[in-house]
Amino acid sequence: MKTVVPPEPMDRGEALARVSIDGVRAASGRLAGVIEKTPVIRCGAIDAMAGAEVCLKCESMQPIGAFKIRGAYNAMSLLSDEARAKGVLAYSSGNHAQAVAMAGGLLGVRTVILMPSDAPRVKLAATRARIDAASGSRVEVYDPKLHRREALAEEIAEREGLTVVPPYDHPDIICGQGTAALALCERTVLDYLFVPTGGGGLLAGCATVAKATSVLRECKVIGVEPALADDAARSFRSGSIEVAGPDAGKTICDGARTPYLGAWTFPVIRERVDGIITATDAEVSRAMRVMMEKARLVVEPTGALGLAGAMKMRDEIAGKTVGVIVSGGNVDLDEIPRLLAIGDQT
Amino acid sequence: MKTVVPPEPMDRGEALARVSIDGVRAASGRLAGVIEKTPVIRCGAIDAMAGAEVCLKCESMQPIGAFKIRGAYNAMSLLSDEARAKGVLAYSSGNHAQAVAMAGGLLGVRTVILMPSDAPRVKLAATRARIDAASGSRVEVYDPKLHRREALAEEIAEREGLTVVPPYDHPDIICGQGTAALALCERTVLDYLFVPTGGGGLLAGCATVAKATSVLRECKVIGVEPALADDAARSFRSGSIEVAGPDAGKTICDGARTPYLGAWTFPVIRERVDGIITATDAEVSRAMRVMMEKARLVVEPTGALGLAGAMKMRDEIAGKTVGVIVSGGNVDLDEIPRLLAIGDQT
Repeated sequence: MKTVVPPEPMDRGEALARVSIDGVRAASGRLAGVIEKTPVIRCGAIDAMAGAEVCLKCESMQPIGAFKIRGAYNAMSLLSDEARAKGVLAYSSGNHAQAVAMAGGLLGVRTVILMPSDAPRVKLAATRARIDAASGSRVEVYDPKLHRREALAEEIAEREGLTVVPPYDHPDIICGQGTAALALCERTVLDYLFVPTGGGGLLAGCATVAKATSVLRECKVIGVEPALADDAARSFRSGSIEVAGPDAGKTICDGARTPYLGAWTFPVIRERVDGIITATDAEVSRAMRVMMEKARLVVEPTGALGLAGAMKMRDEIAGKTVGVIVSGGNVDLDEIPRLLAIGDQT
Repeated sequence: MKTVVPPEPMDRGEALARVSIDGVRAASGRLAGVIEKTPVIRCGAIDAMAGAEVCLKCESMQPIGAFKIRGAYNAMSLLSDEARAKGVLAYSSGNHAQAVAMAGGLLGVRTVILMPSDAPRVKLAATRARIDAASGSRVEVYDPKLHRREALAEEIAEREGLTVVPPYDHPDIICGQGTAALALCERTVLDYLFVPTGGGGLLAGCATVAKATSVLRECKVIGVEPALADDAARSFRSGSIEVAGPDAGKTICDGARTPYLGAWTFPVIRERVDGIITATDAEVSRAMRVMMEKARLVVEPTGALGLAGAMKMRDEIAGKTVGVIVSGGNVDLDEIPRLLAIGDQT
C-alpha cells in the first residue's frame, strides 16, 4: 500500500520571491517561438449563460493539447549542461508526460516518462508518439494501486542519474505555467480569472500574473477543483496542506486527481488567490457540453473546470469581464458521449 | 415520388455582375456588429500533415454554428418593407434553417422553417429554440421521401404570402456567404482556398472574394464535395447543371446533400473556381478526427470537407499557404464516435 504524506510548505517569503512576475516574464521570453500563441475565444451563448463577458484562453490548442509544455520547457531549459546530458524523468497521468517528452525533443534531452496504467488512452498514445526511442527515451507504465509515483520516480532517477521534472511543485514550473495567463491579462482588463486546480502549478502561476498586471482594478483569482479531489479547497481554508480523499481517483477530471498542493504552490496560492471552489463531475460535464456545443471547442474534463466554476459564481460575476483558463483538450473522442451523459443524469 | 429537375443557369454576364466583390463588401457592412468575427486557427500538427500552412477559418464558431447566418441576414435585410411585414419561409436540413430563424429574430421578421424529418437532431432542436412562436413563427417538419422541398415551400409561401429565402441560389445569399472569406483573404496572401460545396453558395461567394483580393499572386479556389453527392464536380466538368445520384442522402455530410448547383451559383463557379474535387465519407471522417484531435475544434462532417480536400491535394499544395473554410460545427455530440469510426474502417 502506498502512504500519502503531504509536503511541508516552503518559507512564504522565499516562495513569493522565486515565483514572481519577473520569473514569468523571463519564462515567456524562453517560450517565445517554441509554443503556440493560443487564441482567446469569445462565445455569445456562453456570455449569455454566464451573464458576463467570458474570455476562454484555449491552452487546449497547444501542440500537446495542454498548458503543461510551458512549465516543462521552462524548467528543462534552465537545467545545467551536466543534468541535460544525463537526462530527465517525469511522472504524470498524461499532459505533463507529453510536455516533458516534447520539451526533451526540442532541447535534445533524454526523457523517461512514468505513467499510471489508468491514464487516458489518448494521453498514453500521444506521449509514446513523442518519445524518441533512438535517444534512449522511454515510457514506463506502473500500477497506481501498487506504487506511490514519487517513490518510484526517485528510485529510477537515482539508478539512472536522471533529474526529476516535477509536474507542478517547482518555481521554474510554476513560472512557466503562469505564462498561460500573461497575454490574456496584459490585453484584457479582467475582473475575475478562473483556473483549473490540481497540484496548483497553473493556479499559482496565473495568480502571480493576474495580481501583478491588474493595476487598474484588482483581478480576483479563483481556483476550481473537482469536488471528488477537494484537497486544495480544504487546504486553502485550513492553512496547511491537506490530502485528497480516497475518491480523488474517481473524478472525470483526470488532470486534477493530484493528492495535495505543493510545497511551492501552497504559499503562493495562499497569498495571491482569492478563493478555491469545487465543481462536481456533473457540473464539469455540463460545462464541457456547453463548450463543445456552443463554443465548438474540444475540451477535456479538467479543461472545463474553469467554466464550471464561473457558472457556479454566476451571481457574483454578473456583468464582469471574466478570464477562464481552458487547461487542456486531450479527451478520448470515443468517451465524449459517456462524459457528457454524466451531466444529464444528475 | 419527387422528381428532380435542375434549374437553368442564369445568364453568365448577369450572374457575374450581381455576384461581385462590391456586393460582398456591402454585405460585410450590413453584417458588421451582427455576426461574430470568427477566428482563424492555426495548428502545427495539421500543417505537418498537410505539408502546408493551413489557416482554418472557423465559421463553426458563429452563433448558429455555421456560416449560413451571413447570407440569410444579408438577404433578409434587403427585403422590402412589405415583404418583411408578411414574413419569410426557408427550407433547410439545418444550418440555413437556424440562420433564417436567427435573422428573423434580429430583424423582427416572422419565419416559417421547413425541415426534413431526417435532419440532425441537434439542428432541429437548435432551430426550434430560435423560433419566436409568439410572433407566429414556426418549424414544419416534412418527410423528404414524400415531398420535394421546393414544391412544398412554394405551396406554403403562396398560401401565407411569405417570401422564400432560398438556401443558396440568390445573389444576396451568395454575396453574404462570401463575407466568410473576406477577412481571411484580406489579411493573408493565400495560394489556395478550399471550400465545402453543396449548392455552391459558399463556394461562389468565397471564390468571388478570393479572385478579387489575390492581386499579388492568384489564389486557386477548390470546391470540395462529398463523393456520394458529386453533382457539382460533374457539373463543373460537363458545363451544365447535373443532378446528384440516389445516394446523395446517404453521405455523412448532411449540409452538402443538395441535389444540384443553383442557377446563380453555377455560372459564378464556372468562372471563378479552379476545380471541384470529391472526398469520400471515410476521408471526411478522418479529416474530422484530425480537426478534433489536433486542432481541438468541434466540426460537423460538412465542416471537415475543406481539410479533407486539402489533404487529398497534399502534393500540389506543398509549402503553400492554404485557407480552409470550416463551414460548420453542428454535430450531435453523441454521434461523434460513430462518425469517427467511419474513417477507421475504410
